Amino acid sequence: MAELLKGAPIAKELYGGFMKLSDDLKKKGIFPLLRIIIASDDPAIETYSSMIVKNCVKAGILSEKKMLGAETSDADILGLISESNSDGSVHGIIVMLPLWKQLNEKKILEAISPLKDIDGVNPYNAGKTVLGEHSFTPNTAQACIDILLKSGIVLSGKHVVIIGRSNIVGKPLANMLIQKGVDATVTVCHSRTQNLKEICRTADILVAAIGSPKFITKEFTNPEQVIVDVGMNEIKLPDGTSKLVGDVDFDNVKDHVKAITPVPGGVSPLTHTALLENLFKAVKHQINEQNIQ
Amino acid sequence: MAELLKGAPIAKELYGGFMKLSDDLKKKGIFPLLRIIIASDDPAIETYSSMIVKNCVKAGILSEKKMLGAETSDADILGLISESNSDGSVHGIIVMLPLWKQLNEKKILEAISPLKDIDGVNPYNAGKTVLGEHSFTPNTAQACIDILLKSGIVLSGKHVVIIGRSNIVGKPLANMLIQKGVDATVTVCHSRTQNLKEICRTADILVAAIGSPKFITKEFTNPEQVIVDVGMNEIKLPDGTSKLVGDVDFDNVKDHVKAITPVPGGVSPLTHTALLENLFKAVKHQINEQNIQ
Repeated sequence: MAELLKGAPIAKELYGGFMKLSDDLKKKGIFPLLRIIIASDDPAIETYSSMIVKNCVKAGILSEKKMLGAETSDADILGLISESNSDGSVHGIIVMLPLWKQLNEKKILEAISPLKDIDGVNPYNAGKTVLGEHSFTPNTAQACIDILLKSGIVLSGKHVVIIGRSNIVGKPLANMLIQKGVDATVTVCHSRTQNLKEICRTADILVAAIGSPKFITKEFTNPEQVIVDVGMNEIKLPDGTSKLVGDVDFDNVKDHVKAITPVPGGVSPLTHTALLENLFKAVKHQINEQNIQ
Repeated sequence: MAELLKGAPIAKELYGGFMKLSDDLKKKGIFPLLRIIIASDDPAIETYSSMIVKNCVKAGILSEKKMLGAETSDADILGLISESNSDGSVHGIIVMLPLWKQLNEKKILEAISPLKDIDGVNPYNAGKTVLGEHSFTPNTAQACIDILLKSGIVLSGKHVVIIGRSNIVGKPLANMLIQKGVDATVTVCHSRTQNLKEICRTADILVAAIGSPKFITKEFTNPEQVIVDVGMNEIKLPDGTSKLVGDVDFDNVKDHVKAITPVPGGVSPLTHTALLENLFKAVKHQINEQNIQ
């Protein structure tokens, strides 16, 4: 049976550190504040944003949801973002997706100040990541690196094969892993890849970010492999209930690899801590900016 | 003997098209203009920028060099860039590197308007490339794709192994190749990569962008492989003269692969056309912007 790489114990330790950081900031009169902008009635956003609010509480961080109704125009939301960008009491801004249909998503995400873009959605931050400069990186990609490093897995020189090329996982993760100091060798595979199984079998570390339940079976693996399963797929069971499964067929694979992140409880707790890490980075950066001015 | 993939004949055809484009624009009263900013006395810059000016002439494009002396401050060059950004008669801006030592390179490159950044050096453009959106891409990376596609080599589904992770070749090339519509499977290798030869041997297409003369020998190849040699290394010969060689040991490799770009005459003619393609893209974009306003 493979070693299980669990995110929850790592996250628990991180929250302790966050609370201490918040306390220290509060003593200096700084109250870290996350503003969550919601322009949608999608129930998944409601669930997800409530979880973020709860996690902020655990980290000693203030948060506020700004809800924008169905009649919202681009000008309305851009106005709110602009105000949030210049409001010194707001340290991080997240715009939850999807947005009301009439809204211009690209324009809206680009309007978030790169200094408060703790979700790493502004192209400027994506570019800084590529160039190996200080930036905010998308949380799920960061969580993949965090769970590996905090589980003591060496990345330098290792061959990481990523399946999936989304803007929030595959692409930023690849760009983060090849940087100097991380030094992984990285392959990005996707739906058009030929010889996918053969390529995956050569990986020291295999990252599945496909969005396809139980796609990865033991034919994709080797016995020394570490698997990071980013998938979060809800499947219906015969009895009518539903269950959360990853992109990896866990039962099929678990006796054939060295280590694996379970779903749930693997990567996902660390996506939340990655967001909070970014918020503290943003606070620190904003304090430094003020001191320079 | 491998097929030789030569850039010059492709470039020649492209210049014909450029001249026609310029003529059409001139008939509309638009005179494409490239501004080259030089803040250095590096002789390599003198050679390279003169070549750009010559190529502009061949494409029917105006160009001008702005030389800034050894006493130049950040404020001076930032002022010139700001003026160039807002000057409607300037369509593209290049800042030649290196700069005088006292200058803040990062800040200066970021000051170039993303709409005129035809060298693709602004992080915003690097980010747009990652996200698969309209952007200006670094010329050498673009030239690697151009020589392959214009030589009739299929990229979709193929495994491209890139050796080298520079900000101007390896990283942007990887980000361009994995996009939807290009659809290559991409591996990025570098100095820390373990099993480099084994990984390279699995490549359908091998891109050498290392900066190390004759590094790639036949042990890195397979008989069906296409090799793109980005290296431009000047080596001293025993008789005291010097010679330009690639990152590939051409004589060692040439009978063991399917196709290869020679050095010189392979990729490099297309780096210049990639720059000019970007200039025309910039002109087109700026015209559209004006029509919208």
